[in-house]
Amino acid sequence: MKKKNSFILQNENSIYYECGYSCDNVIFLSLGSESFFITDARYELEAKLFVQNSQVVISNDIIKSAKKILTKNNIKSITIDPYDFSLAQFKLLSKKLDIKFIQEANFSKQKRIIKTNDEIKLLKKAMSLGRDGFAKFNKFIKNSNKLYDEKYLNFKAISCMSNYGKYDLSFDPIVAVDQNSAKPHALPTKDKYDKKTNLLLMDAGIKYKRYCSDRTVTYINKKDKFQQKIYDIVSKAQQTAIKKAKAGMKASKVDAIARQIIDKKGYGKYFVHSTGHGVGLDIHEYPNISSKSDVILEENMVFTIEPGIYLPDRFGIRIEDTVAIQNGRAEIL
Amino acid sequence: MKKKNSFILQNENSIYYECGYSCDNVIFLSLGSESFFITDARYELEAKLFVQNSQVVISNDIIKSAKKILTKNNIKSITIDPYDFSLAQFKLLSKKLDIKFIQEANFSKQKRIIKTNDEIKLLKKAMSLGRDGFAKFNKFIKNSNKLYDEKYLNFKAISCMSNYGKYDLSFDPIVAVDQNSAKPHALPTKDKYDKKTNLLLMDAGIKYKRYCSDRTVTYINKKDKFQQKIYDIVSKAQQTAIKKAKAGMKASKVDAIARQIIDKKGYGKYFVHSTGHGVGLDIHEYPNISSKSDVILEENMVFTIEPGIYLPDRFGIRIEDTVAIQNGRAEIL
Repeated sequence: MKKKNSFILQNENSIYYECGYSCDNVIFLSLGSESFFITDARYELEAKLFVQNSQVVISNDIIKSAKKILTKNNIKSITIDPYDFSLAQFKLLSKKLDIKFIQEANFSKQKRIIKTNDEIKLLKKAMSLGRDGFAKFNKFIKNSNKLYDEKYLNFKAISCMSNYGKYDLSFDPIVAVDQNSAKPHALPTKDKYDKKTNLLLMDAGIKYKRYCSDRTVTYINKKDKFQQKIYDIVSKAQQTAIKKAKAGMKASKVDAIARQIIDKKGYGKYFVHSTGHGVGLDIHEYPNISSKSDVILEENMVFTIEPGIYLPDRFGIRIEDTVAIQNGRAEIL
Repeated sequence: MKKKNSFILQNENSIYYECGYSCDNVIFLSLGSESFFITDARYELEAKLFVQNSQVVISNDIIKSAKKILTKNNIKSITIDPYDFSLAQFKLLSKKLDIKFIQEANFSKQKRIIKTNDEIKLLKKAMSLGRDGFAKFNKFIKNSNKLYDEKYLNFKAISCMSNYGKYDLSFDPIVAVDQNSAKPHALPTKDKYDKKTNLLLMDAGIKYKRYCSDRTVTYINKKDKFQQKIYDIVSKAQQTAIKKAKAGMKASKVDAIARQIIDKKGYGKYFVHSTGHGVGLDIHEYPNISSKSDVILEENMVFTIEPGIYLPDRFGIRIEDTVAIQNGRAEIL
């Protein structure tokens, strides 16, 4: 991990990672030995309670206050993530300030690529609660005799995953039936899901103490031999990738392992995305598990393995788990 | 409405306003007589079906394609909203391009300040569905004998407002009990809500065909005379502002009308926000109804009127409706 001398952040999760608290109107300055958490009066109480190792500054113009602190501390250059600030915000920040802004995309995510043991514990707990949510949803489907459309199923997914409001979700669940499961960004249909004849793909996760879970389950129609065949190919690709992933391996190799199995069966062109992505405070972190990813897998990296086959106008099957490299091997969290 | 010759947009709602369709990876170019909707292959089908009066361009690098189109059309200057692009995106867009970018903050929102009659109809429908949601929530509270914490009440608010998944929400509902209602950004507590003794503030809305509703109801403990007194002051401020708002009046005047009533009763310093904001495709649009807003109210402007009194460590009361200027007067939608 490269040590940054000075950097500026605005992103909530990046700031939480630095000091253990965050909110939706904050600028964080790390200036070598000193750090500053600049927010407005609404968050004063909580910031002063929870922010660690940083000075809390209350301001009704947080950009102005950040500029003052930078000037006062005689800062000559500072690292900024150009995806973290809008053009307008950057203009306000940099105006009349004699400082070199070193633009480094996603430097905070890069720092977070290897999780601490404590973070792994939180991610494990998140995954476990996420599995409980899937089990609840599964039970609902199993016991239900009514037919529901995708919008209602999405609502049920939210209910089950959040445990009726107890947990925040990592992202809005994807619940797609039959043809819709083959279109990753289709509009929800009004077609009803019939567990006896339809396929259902659900991709969902929850947050535990801000750490995300991510998982996809595809419930196929078991009487449909073709669906079963495709399911088995995806499952084999997923399980083989999990089994073979190890510390010291390039991330692109994990992608290749999954892709080869699907390729060999003739469905390579229907596996239209990369094999996985890192998971942590953000639902998408590093490492990318893609054909282009040169990252070498290391102990305590956490990422998804989620190959899929998407047959247009028919159905899509994706199977996803989140794993951590533990004792050199991928362990499902 | 000032006519823009050429402009570039990335914001989903701004683009929907221009051409009747949008998605989460799109750049929209309006170049005088011609417009371009540039997106990736995932959205091709829907874009070609729904985008109006614009050419759909499918690309796996939408910024690159936008640059090509700008160059090919010999564009010399183009308006951009600096809040609509990150510093990184703007850098990619403007690099090696001999075009003057005219930065105009929120120009799309500015265009949308006066609604068409069709938009008013959609907003009316959204508000009506939003009221149905509030009625459902109210019924749940009335019929329930259990005590629930804020997280569960928030979940119930989502359930009722969305009509169990049928409608998207304008924003994550705010459901706050007693002391928490006085802190606009407090963390949810585990305290249980007892309808017989507690106050509950709920601020929520739904989307109908992408148009937002927005409303706040505060359920007080009617046996608490002090709560009733504060409620009556807020209610009077709100109703008077609605009654007196009219076309030709400055928005700041509407704010002043509400504020004066609260001021006179001695609670001015506890009315800590502005009186309202525009509502449309975005939950926050123009006009601002604040002490600083010089906007002159016009026919078909749509905005909230939502004064409040927040007594720290005690409770907060806010009453909010969304109105449209119709026949010169504010009409509750």
